[in-house]
This record gives sequence, structure tokens and C-alpha cells, in this order.
Amino acid sequence: MHVNRIHNFNPGPAALPASVLEEIQSNFLDFNGSGMSVTEISHRSPWFDDIINDAIARTRRLLNISDEYKVLFLQGGASLQFCMVPMNLIADNQSADYVDTGTWSTKAIKEAQILGKTVNIAASSADKNYTYIPRDISFTRDAGYVHITSNNTIKGTQWPEFPNTQGIPLIADMSSDFMSRPFDVSAFGLIYAGAQKNIGPAGVCMVIIREDMLGRVPDTIPTMLKYTTFASKNSMYNTPPCFAVYTVQLVLKWLEGAIGGLEKMDELNRQKADRLYRFLDSSDFYRPTAQPNSRSMMNVTFRLADEQLEQRFVQAAQAIDLAGLKGHRSVGGCRASIYNATPLETVDALIAFMKHFESHNG
Amino acid sequence: MHVNRIHNFNPGPAALPASVLEEIQSNFLDFNGSGMSVTEISHRSPWFDDIINDAIARTRRLLNISDEYKVLFLQGGASLQFCMVPMNLIADNQSADYVDTGTWSTKAIKEAQILGKTVNIAASSADKNYTYIPRDISFTRDAGYVHITSNNTIKGTQWPEFPNTQGIPLIADMSSDFMSRPFDVSAFGLIYAGAQKNIGPAGVCMVIIREDMLGRVPDTIPTMLKYTTFASKNSMYNTPPCFAVYTVQLVLKWLEGAIGGLEKMDELNRQKADRLYRFLDSSDFYRPTAQPNSRSMMNVTFRLADEQLEQRFVQAAQAIDLAGLKGHRSVGGCRASIYNATPLETVDALIAFMKHFESHNG
Repeated sequence: MHVNRIHNFNPGPAALPASVLEEIQSNFLDFNGSGMSVTEISHRSPWFDDIINDAIARTRRLLNISDEYKVLFLQGGASLQFCMVPMNLIADNQSADYVDTGTWSTKAIKEAQILGKTVNIAASSADKNYTYIPRDISFTRDAGYVHITSNNTIKGTQWPEFPNTQGIPLIADMSSDFMSRPFDVSAFGLIYAGAQKNIGPAGVCMVIIREDMLGRVPDTIPTMLKYTTFASKNSMYNTPPCFAVYTVQLVLKWLEGAIGGLEKMDELNRQKADRLYRFLDSSDFYRPTAQPNSRSMMNVTFRLADEQLEQRFVQAAQAIDLAGLKGHRSVGGCRASIYNATPLETVDALIAFMKHFESHNG
Repeated sequence: MHVNRIHNFNPGPAALPASVLEEIQSNFLDFNGSGMSVTEISHRSPWFDDIINDAIARTRRLLNISDEYKVLFLQGGASLQFCMVPMNLIADNQSADYVDTGTWSTKAIKEAQILGKTVNIAASSADKNYTYIPRDISFTRDAGYVHITSNNTIKGTQWPEFPNTQGIPLIADMSSDFMSRPFDVSAFGLIYAGAQKNIGPAGVCMVIIREDMLGRVPDTIPTMLKYTTFASKNSMYNTPPCFAVYTVQLVLKWLEGAIGGLEKMDELNRQKADRLYRFLDSSDFYRPTAQPNSRSMMNVTFRLADEQLEQRFVQAAQAIDLAGLKGHRSVGGCRASIYNATPLETVDALIAFMKHFESHNG
């Protein structure tokens, strides 16, 4: 059967590996001989236990995570983590350091403030419209944690390496580059990532939390907002988002098997991003927006001469099945999101189109 | 292609209509000609707008909901609503009435108390192990709301009709009987329902809220925990659980189309439940646990002579593809969950098996 599939540059929900989608499809009416769809099996069944435990085991292997950490599946996206992190991890009289690299960091800061916590802006790139990752960070000696956003989908920036926080627990929103490259989990107190960019569909958020962070969780917060609730029940205090967890499991299987792990994934992602940035740098028609040493390997943001031309560019691309190239509505411009599941051919197709468009409009 | 499908009596996640599963499967690689899976489309795209708006429109039509109400999709299940309801709808110096009909009501009460709110137990059936729905309710004149659980999956009880709360806003956790029968939405201030019983897969919770309730939401709570956040952004302040919302949309389409609406659904559900209860009442071998005037049309709970026999019963049923008949681990016994998507034939197959099992063990 011929299936129409486009080149998907969506910022999230985003492209998923074709083999994962095909496996979901072929098993959809009868999951592993259960006689039920994966959407119909009980989360208290051996079938679902296998799904969630395999997803956790693969996460541990891929990132080489020690037993000191718990791997959890929550709902509500990274946006719910913006309030859960300060609610769980700093006392009312304690402060936390935040590095402000734009939209998502800014929202995380706002939620801590709504809760009445004291936020120290340890660094910010607001001075240059968030086009770079700050290197100069003023840590507060007794801060409860330092919060960063590892990749900034809207501004197209990414931390090339993570800061040394001088012993203060580092917490990262990794929603848009989690599992795109290897990193040292042991440098972090907590990591969270909405799944809908690199590891699955919308509707599930992964959290990796160090045991000592669990010790901070106060008794006075609601059960569903405590990390300890999820840690003590293998993320099944209540019904988890089973289908989303299942899809994550299959994506991680693809990452370990078909791709061969995070070093390989990183290599592929760099190849894609390098090719696209090299083209952008060679052109006067397209202008990349992020500073070269802060460029994201996941979200390549660029402008054309004016908004009208950008609109024509996005429409012309869409017409030949290059979808999702419009920049975020808050900043305008163009953006190619090239997450894990985006093949190199898709980047090549984009570059070919960009050359063609330039030659007819340059 | 032959697909192995069993008789599914799971309490949730539960059986979904076969036609819905088949539609998801056949469109899974290319949603509506988009060239993307429904798991890959943007939640800011016209495709997803059509999904969520159609799901809302169908909800409004099926329940005849007035413009005074908003229909929302949240994450975190009913368990998150246990804290969101008191957090959003009662001030610190105000109290709320709760009717305690077992496990889920009890959990809802606990979350209000964790938040420091004053809970009045307006009625309880704890005296008889929650085997009935209390008729005698002592409303507190200035209570912020009255909270009930419309159907109790574990104890197998269900409100046959809803109480007149004398002007106090009525709030119901309808997770396990929402969309199983018609009811008057205008009697409620807020209704919430985890989807994974009657209307979809795990991972999404529907909320129907009256405008005046939105007026109560304080500014001081985190953005993702405010009903106003979801009401003002058509449930898309952040990325919603797209696949789960899509499945709900298809189930509602099935409910309006193939079934013909909630009166018809109610008729079918009563037919299934009546047939099963009639059989239970005719037998001395099986003992239904809920009082006759409080019996659930959704979860039929019963006991056998002893636990060993119950275990054999569940195993023998499983062996001939009648799955999910074990009672909740907190109460033991047996339970047949017969939600909307359970066909009459499945109930007949169960009754036939029960007769057979009785004749060999009675």
C-alpha cells in the first residue's frame, strides 16, 4: 500500500520514526497476542509492566544512569514541571537560581514566582534577544538549585556543554533535546522532558530525579504533584498515559537498535545541523538568527529579507510537502526542527528547495 | 486478516469500540491526507483544531450543554482533579461538602484536606462498607460546593439520580459513567471524567465547567493548575495529549452515529446490566455485593463462596478469553466492567461461562 508521507519540520509534536509508527499500526488491534489494543490493556497487567519497565531500562542504558536516580513518567508536559520543580524542591524561605534563555525559561521563572519562591536570575541573554547561551553565571551560594533550559526551540539556541554549578544541584528542562546526544546524568539533580519532540507523542513527560532530591519533597503538597508519589509507585499511582509511554518505549528501542545509541544519534544530528547551517552561512538570502557558538542542533531558526518573503517561502515549501517551517508565532521568521526522527534526506530536500527558492527570488 | 480479540471486562483502561480502533489503525501513517501520523501533526494546525473542536461540539450535542459551560481537556486523570477542584473553587476560609462513597471519594476528600480546606462529610456509606449510595445528605448552608462520585468502580455502586443540593454547586467525578447515560448538565457546577473507561484511552481527562465557577479561580495558583488557563486557550495553553483527544473524538462520533446518542446508549447499558444482575440474583453460587437500589450499570461486583474459588473462577474465565474479571486489589472478589464499548454478546458470553462454572463447582 502506498502511503503519502511528507517532510515534517514541525517543532513538536514532531516526526516519529517510520518503523515505530508501522509497529504501532500493525499491532494496534491485538497487542502482543493479548487480544486487546494497547489502548485497552490494563495498566496493572504484565503487558503494561513490560512496556514501562522496558522503557525505563532502555533510558538507563542509553544514558548510563546510576541507581541513585529514578526514571518517571508524568503528565502535564514540561509546563506542569515549571511549578512542580519549585513546589517540590525549594522551601518557602529558600531561593533558586534560574538562567533565562527565553520563552520557556521565562515561563519556568514565572511559575516559581507565582508560588512565592525567591528567584535569582543567575544569567540571562535577554540583552541580545536571547540569541545566545550565557557563559557568565553568578551562582547564589545557598540556592536550592540552578535551573536551565538545555535547548530553546523558539530562539534556536542550545547549551553546547552544561555549566559547572559548584555543587548546587543542576536542573534542566530538556524537552527539546533529550536523547538527541549523550550527556552526564550524574551532573544533574533533576531532568525533565516533554516527549513530543525526540522521544514520543504529546501526553507524557519524562523525569529523571536523584534520590536526595526526593528527600526534599514536603508532605504538604497534593499527592499528584509530589515526585515521591510517582517514584514510590513506578509512575502508576494512578492510570498513566499508557499509549504515550508505549510509543516512547518503541522510540527508545529504535534509538538503541536501528540507530545504535546516543553517540550515533549525536553524530547524525550534527551531520544534519552542520549541513543546514553551512548552507545558511553560505547564503546572503537566508540569515540564521542564533549566535554561531550557541546554535541549536534541533531547531534551526532563520530569517529572510522581510515577512512577506518569509510567508511566501513557508507556503512554497508546504506546496512541495516540506511542512512546519514557520517560526514560532511569538518571534516570526522561519524554523526547521530537525529532531532525531528527521532523516538526512529531509534536510537535503530542504536545502535543495531553499536554493531553488533563492534563485527565483534572490 | 484475522485478528484475535477477546472479551474485555477491564475496569479501565477498558474496551474501546472496534470501529474506532480500526479507524485509528487505518489512518495511522497518514492522517486525513496530511502525510503525517496523528501523533506527528502540530496541535496548532487546522487538523488538530478540527479534532478538538469536533470533540467539543459532539460533547455539547450529546449532553445538550448550554453556552454557560466550557468543555476542557486536561491531563493527570481524575486524581489531579481531586486537588484542582478545591484549589480552584474554595477559598481558604470556606468549606466544601463531600459525599463519601468509597475509595475515590475518600481520595478526593484527602486531597482537599492536604490543601488545608475544611471538608464536611455531608453523607457517607462507610457504615456498610460502601455498598450503597446514601440518600440522606446534610448540606452545609455556606459550603463552596457539594462533591460526589457518580459511579464507584471498586464498590460497584452508582447514583441512580443526582441529589438536589439546594442551590450549592454540585461537582461530580464522573470518570466511570460519563457518557453512559443522559443527565442534566445544568444541575452541575463542574464535572470531570478520566477518559479511560467510557470515552477514550488513558491520558486525558474531560472537564465541563460553568462560567461562574471560573470566576472563583484565584490568581495565586500555578498556571497549569488553573481552570481559567485551559478555558481561555481552548485547552491548548501547552501541548495537549493529542492522540488521546483524537481517540475521544472518534468514540464520541461512534456514540452519536453508530449508537444514536445517550438515550440509546443508556438503553443498551441497562440491558447489559439487567441481564447480568438478573442472572446473579437467580443464583446462590454468586453473590452481588452492592445493594439493589445502588447498583452500578458499569461495574458489576460479586463474590463467590471463598477466595480460592474466586481465583479459580477468574483463571478459568481468562482461559476462554473472558479477561479482566478480578475485583480491585483493595476489596478482592470479582468484577465485570461493562462500559459503553462492551457488546451485549460479551455479557452473554460471561453469563454462559458463569453457568458452566457453577455447574462444575456448585
